[in-house]
Amino acid sequence: MEFSSKLLERAVNEMAQLPGIGKRTALRLVLHLLKQPKEQTELFASALLKMREEIKFCRECHNISDVDVCEICANPSRDTSVVCVVEDIRDVMALENTGIFKGLYHVLGGKISPIDGVGPSQLNINSLVDKVKSGRVKEVIFALSSTMEGDTTNFYIYKQIKEYGVTTSAIARGIAIGDELEYADEVTLGRSLLHRIPFENSIKNM
Amino acid sequence: MEFSSKLLERAVNEMAQLPGIGKRTALRLVLHLLKQPKEQTELFASALLKMREEIKFCRECHNISDVDVCEICANPSRDTSVVCVVEDIRDVMALENTGIFKGLYHVLGGKISPIDGVGPSQLNINSLVDKVKSGRVKEVIFALSSTMEGDTTNFYIYKQIKEYGVTTSAIARGIAIGDELEYADEVTLGRSLLHRIPFENSIKNM
Repeated sequence: MEFSSKLLERAVNEMAQLPGIGKRTALRLVLHLLKQPKEQTELFASALLKMREEIKFCRECHNISDVDVCEICANPSRDTSVVCVVEDIRDVMALENTGIFKGLYHVLGGKISPIDGVGPSQLNINSLVDKVKSGRVKEVIFALSSTMEGDTTNFYIYKQIKEYGVTTSAIARGIAIGDELEYADEVTLGRSLLHRIPFENSIKNM
Repeated sequence: MEFSSKLLERAVNEMAQLPGIGKRTALRLVLHLLKQPKEQTELFASALLKMREEIKFCRECHNISDVDVCEICANPSRDTSVVCVVEDIRDVMALENTGIFKGLYHVLGGKISPIDGVGPSQLNINSLVDKVKSGRVKEVIFALSSTMEGDTTNFYIYKQIKEYGVTTSAIARGIAIGDELEYADEVTLGRSLLHRIPFENSIKNM
């Protein structure tokens, strides 16, 4: 792409560094900003800078927070004996939306992925092991996505904490509510048969 | 969406103001920036601010430029008697990529679209009429997209400039090179029949 302006080119190149944003989309977005009042670009830039500068991570669960200990960890009505291990803040938001989970979270900040250069030391695993060691935690729930990286990470953590006698569990995999059996993949369907539950349990909470 | 951090929420909301970027995508992009070195966000924000602050529009053709008169208008080898009317800088880039057009451009900055509140006065139409009035221009080529808004804009300009005896033309519409006839829409195919050209002409420039 040849640009008639270096300023425009630089803005487009920076915008195109975002994941999933190509040069053409970046140009469309940048031209949109040019058509809007100058204040919108200023607000946008300052929001990004302020966030990158001032954002904190909860020292208990490593979730993104504006204070040292996040709202969830600071809430006295949450059950501190159950810890749900998730990848990032989006999973915390999704689980909080269900309104069912009343324990605490532990945000790893990613999954073990040698291909992307992410090893266990870059994730918040040691602090989880320390939590379990302290004896405060009775159950650890694994809620990573069921990819190869997710499974590897689960297993790595499991090996480190099992000696401390903590209960470990994984969220149920199966056919989503409302989905048709015929469109389900065979691995999911097979597992949902293997891990079937008593019918009485399946109609609870409905 | 409930956020655990106001800083994060503000950044996501600003990002989601961009066209085609929803809240979920915005969150993904913002979390990406958080994982990258701080410098990337700083470069990104400063590129946007600097562009919005300092960008100029060529005073001849209204294209985006870093100087008062853009490279194309300042190029003495371009034919100043032919002016191609386009909507925005992306069209200029696309036409320049062909390497065929050697005239000048006139960037309208949009199309007449009452539904979006865009009237003729918000577009760079008067300066085009002035150019034609001055007698310097021999031909005006309309290259707006062939939507209702594009056709309306073309016709509005045509009515304003025809009295000055300038030649007006529109880019050819027809089946794209390499496309199959059977998949073409009937309007395009019909027009390509009506506006057929001598075979000898069709094999020129091949």
